[in-house]
Amino acid sequence: MTNLIVVGATGAVGKQVIGLLDYNYAPFKNLRLLASKRSAGKSIIIKHKEYFVEAINENSFFGFDFAIFCVDTDISKKYVPIAVKSGCRVIDNSSAFRMMPGIPLIVPEINFNTFSENNYIIANPNCCTAILTMALYPLHINNKIKEIQISTYQSASGAGEKGMKELIKQSYDYINGNTLETEVFGRQYLWNVFSHNSAIDLVNGYNGEEIKIMEETKKILNTNLIDISVTCVRVPVLRSHSLSVSLTFTNENNTNNIRELLNSFPGVQVVDDRLRNVFPEPILSNHSDNIFVGRIRNRLGDKTNTKFELFICGDQLLKGAALNAIQIYNEICKKILLINKEEIVA
Amino acid sequence: MTNLIVVGATGAVGKQVIGLLDYNYAPFKNLRLLASKRSAGKSIIIKHKEYFVEAINENSFFGFDFAIFCVDTDISKKYVPIAVKSGCRVIDNSSAFRMMPGIPLIVPEINFNTFSENNYIIANPNCCTAILTMALYPLHINNKIKEIQISTYQSASGAGEKGMKELIKQSYDYINGNTLETEVFGRQYLWNVFSHNSAIDLVNGYNGEEIKIMEETKKILNTNLIDISVTCVRVPVLRSHSLSVSLTFTNENNTNNIRELLNSFPGVQVVDDRLRNVFPEPILSNHSDNIFVGRIRNRLGDKTNTKFELFICGDQLLKGAALNAIQIYNEICKKILLINKEEIVA
Repeated sequence: MTNLIVVGATGAVGKQVIGLLDYNYAPFKNLRLLASKRSAGKSIIIKHKEYFVEAINENSFFGFDFAIFCVDTDISKKYVPIAVKSGCRVIDNSSAFRMMPGIPLIVPEINFNTFSENNYIIANPNCCTAILTMALYPLHINNKIKEIQISTYQSASGAGEKGMKELIKQSYDYINGNTLETEVFGRQYLWNVFSHNSAIDLVNGYNGEEIKIMEETKKILNTNLIDISVTCVRVPVLRSHSLSVSLTFTNENNTNNIRELLNSFPGVQVVDDRLRNVFPEPILSNHSDNIFVGRIRNRLGDKTNTKFELFICGDQLLKGAALNAIQIYNEICKKILLINKEEIVA
Repeated sequence: MTNLIVVGATGAVGKQVIGLLDYNYAPFKNLRLLASKRSAGKSIIIKHKEYFVEAINENSFFGFDFAIFCVDTDISKKYVPIAVKSGCRVIDNSSAFRMMPGIPLIVPEINFNTFSENNYIIANPNCCTAILTMALYPLHINNKIKEIQISTYQSASGAGEKGMKELIKQSYDYINGNTLETEVFGRQYLWNVFSHNSAIDLVNGYNGEEIKIMEETKKILNTNLIDISVTCVRVPVLRSHSLSVSLTFTNENNTNNIRELLNSFPGVQVVDDRLRNVFPEPILSNHSDNIFVGRIRNRLGDKTNTKFELFICGDQLLKGAALNAIQIYNEICKKILLINKEEIVA
């Protein structure tokens, strides 16, 4: 069994990773929880055992086989190389290494075959990318997708604990007639939507989040032939992300085929009840391991039968982050360490 | 001067119409406020004069020249013909008459020329349609739009007063740890987004709101040649609607040209500051007469220079409903009654 480190154990994603470990989603022998100095000393119970959060430093990684990094890009850039030098294999949630050639960017259901034993850094995709590619891949391998148009409905959790706290705090302040605090997003988030707060490329006008989704999706689907455009928008939702997606396939398709392909893909669930008006929505996907797809329909007036619309929801903190990282970890454990997770966990 | 009736005076849109009348947006001589029996007797002060809401009945319209209907489709269907028979010209906010041949569907900045003196029913567009066409029209007359892809971010006000109240009530209940009431939308709206709650066409999978936007946009832009698809989604916002829009033009275009065309069109304001990350958002457009457009960018990788993205916000209750109705009223007053609004109001 592996000795595992969770870096960023007190953040929004780190907490979910720990929750999954506590819930037997993955095996480990020794476990170390790292965070900033500020969080050091905090106690966390996992499987009836108490762990104390330690402040990260250059010697934190010796003697450990694996580290799941759930921290900002700057901290990943600094400590991932140190972890690797210490002999640790790293699954990194940040965007620091995702697009580097030679570094696998993995959604296990899709492209775990891009991992080899030589890879000591494995990148976990952007939250929207992970959720999106889960819906695209089963369709794409059946009938190549040529063009994608996406508008996102992204939750506060994408900005971490502090984002969720600020949104909830604003609702308290609104109800109590206080001025709303706007430290994290620089604006009222309650009763508002706004263009994603990542920096904009001044030349092309796309923001960082949009570029990530566009580039990472191509890397995971292993193609440069998809013409993809994304508009990223934050909505006052706590944890699940939603995506409104228009697809153009190379060949004719139909809604029944799309539903079947999606429903038979692990981790994807079709929720598409036209009669009762039941479709994917964040309060359904919150805390679920699955991603949900609905509103599946052929574009009205499309005579080519190649253009389809769908609406996707997935828990940003689970399949969009922690769960995907844990799944990567499990697959690597199985492959490298010849551990059969089922035997150990059961 | 005209004798004017506001039907549905106590609803979300009716209140805004009255607010605009109070604020000198339009001239009137006698004013009658109608609503259901339940609201009859309520007192409303307009320009320092007290008016009492009357229960609507078949004799309500005699002696009045104009009626602005701000009620549900069922009530419009029943009372608009009665009003017209009584000699009243009707501006109707419902969808009852919008797509009928011979009935003008008007956004005054765009197609007031479709009105003639013989028209006794004038339809006010769907809220999203009005906001959307304001941004599309100045671009379309310069360079024909071939294809449009839209995802909406629609506010609670689209479901009237009761929708807004339920959303606010849910935040009270959330903060106080109570069970959330879900009478209007049948689901938690706070911290959630969901596919628009209008009925779905079981065959094509589009909901009523989407069909309205698609059909009405073509009628207002006076073309059947635009291939348009819409996905309508409700977000927990109180009054402004937002739309993420992808456009394909017939000929080459560029962002500067688009910005100039939009900024020089009355009622449209470009907010598109890439450096400071300032773009249209509901809390900016709430209570504004203008609609706001930003995130204007050429689709990344588009070699044809015909594909562009934009993000639009507009106050659903103003340009999306009450303001547009008042503007129609003013234009008709000027044309039919030869009243110069400016002279009278000033």
